[in-house]
Amino acid sequence: MLRLAIVGYGNLGRGVEAAARQNKDMNLCAVFTRRDPATVILQTRDVPVLSMDALADWEDKLDVLILCGGSATDLPVMTPAIARKFNVIDSFDNHGNIPTHYAAVDAAAREGDHIAVISVGWDPGLFSINRLYGGAVLPEGKGYTFWGKGVSQGHSDAVRRIPGVADCRQYTIPVPEAMEAVRNGEDPELTTRQKHTRYCYVVAEENADKAAIETAIKTMPNYFADYDTTVEFVTAEELKRDHSGLPHGGSVIRSGVTGWNGENRQTIEYKLTLDSNPQFTASMLVATARAAVKMYDRGERGCKTVLDIAPADLSILSREEMLAQLL
Amino acid sequence: MLRLAIVGYGNLGRGVEAAARQNKDMNLCAVFTRRDPATVILQTRDVPVLSMDALADWEDKLDVLILCGGSATDLPVMTPAIARKFNVIDSFDNHGNIPTHYAAVDAAAREGDHIAVISVGWDPGLFSINRLYGGAVLPEGKGYTFWGKGVSQGHSDAVRRIPGVADCRQYTIPVPEAMEAVRNGEDPELTTRQKHTRYCYVVAEENADKAAIETAIKTMPNYFADYDTTVEFVTAEELKRDHSGLPHGGSVIRSGVTGWNGENRQTIEYKLTLDSNPQFTASMLVATARAAVKMYDRGERGCKTVLDIAPADLSILSREEMLAQLL
Repeated sequence: MLRLAIVGYGNLGRGVEAAARQNKDMNLCAVFTRRDPATVILQTRDVPVLSMDALADWEDKLDVLILCGGSATDLPVMTPAIARKFNVIDSFDNHGNIPTHYAAVDAAAREGDHIAVISVGWDPGLFSINRLYGGAVLPEGKGYTFWGKGVSQGHSDAVRRIPGVADCRQYTIPVPEAMEAVRNGEDPELTTRQKHTRYCYVVAEENADKAAIETAIKTMPNYFADYDTTVEFVTAEELKRDHSGLPHGGSVIRSGVTGWNGENRQTIEYKLTLDSNPQFTASMLVATARAAVKMYDRGERGCKTVLDIAPADLSILSREEMLAQLL
Repeated sequence: MLRLAIVGYGNLGRGVEAAARQNKDMNLCAVFTRRDPATVILQTRDVPVLSMDALADWEDKLDVLILCGGSATDLPVMTPAIARKFNVIDSFDNHGNIPTHYAAVDAAAREGDHIAVISVGWDPGLFSINRLYGGAVLPEGKGYTFWGKGVSQGHSDAVRRIPGVADCRQYTIPVPEAMEAVRNGEDPELTTRQKHTRYCYVVAEENADKAAIETAIKTMPNYFADYDTTVEFVTAEELKRDHSGLPHGGSVIRSGVTGWNGENRQTIEYKLTLDSNPQFTASMLVATARAAVKMYDRGERGCKTVLDIAPADLSILSREEMLAQLL
């Protein structure tokens, strides 16, 4: 059994707890939290909830920790700090800062003689893997990533910060015509606006200026200004009733040509349709925890990403089972 | 530059030659053939075509050989024999015999201190990888593989052996309703007949008994008896005009649930749409040749499969480029 612990018990931590239960080789040993442990009630019985200070007592009692903090401020500090003492996995998803995070975690993990896998999930994660496979197999081609239809938590949060907004749920929606053009092998050049639209369900505070809110959303740089955005005002009850889930998904498509004169078109599409974004990320984190321990046991150290993990290491199956059932 | 050679110059060998040209780090050094080398004309200028006997002179002059023989009789002999002297890649695709082939190649490669990667392509190959990822990430779920629409060369050959048949092109077609049920998360139990249909374009010899041919096809065990099969007689000209390509493809779908009570459905679909089956297989062989050499240089020996290869090893990109562009 693999001795696993969770650090941070929000949506993602709860997802890891549930995913660990689906894998017979996983033994959840502890949950560490920055909150008062007495206030945290797990789904699992008989697993201790402990403060971060208690981590020091657990060296040699855990094979791997899954860090379920946020990418903005938690993980840049937490992952290097904990990687000095333990094998760790995180889901750092701030794409632009991955090289910096990688360098910090690599130095810490090597210093502590541990292994750390960063940026695990579906994007970055399984989508990254598929961007790599697509480019390696079809070098004369173009790669595209479409997201959605799904809830973007970062964009929802951005709208909530606008004065007069009580709540918001923002959906990212791929443009069907753009996806069709890619699937048809047209290799289109697509602007940000041509790839995705955004749809905001907004609960306004009483007497708020709805026209001002709508303008503030649609003109917000980076988040909305480059997109065709629709704003729909709903009641708090409607938002809760119709939009309380966290669905997401998307497609990584590689379209390329092969043959002496590039005469044949080949298309690869990897598509995710997810009812729960955090739970799917959690499932990938748990499979990656298994791989990290196998790699650590073989002597691998330092920071890795999903691109460095042989598929076989993610699986609970034996080599014989893989050869007979999967290959 | 990676020094590459091809063994066997049919559809697949020609595909490898074209794929190697698409990769800047590949240097095709020689093609080995069992035919009279004087009769083999390559697409590439200035690359020697040599008899199999000449292979012995090329030790230490090649980094890896891609073996483009058939799975029925060529590769079971060829791959172990050549793996004693060289690093090799093959596309052995007889699923049931993979464990036996693996054992033979592993022993030979270890004896010769080389690395060999077997069963490379898309199924076995990229489809195997996706069956593994799907099962590892969604352990509470079901996996499905659909093939087509595409030409099955094995089934076309089987029809050609029927008396009175001059030529045939057989298409394997997935049943759309079955794929929709899987995508909808219905977890159906599907019989062979419910998953795929078969369509045969047959050129009959003059005065052949067409009714007898149709019966012989539809009742052929293993190949057709378990399927709904349609037989359409066409002229040799029509077959050549409309069915001379080798398109193929298919989907690997994993549908599973996550959450403490399995309350959320998650679906992964990996889909290939290929104008040329052999050229796509060839493209995967070439990317795998790159990975094999990297692994050999790190000291790995013996027989591997695509499941043992970290995605990063397939890529021509540097670690820095991968972190910045792919992850």
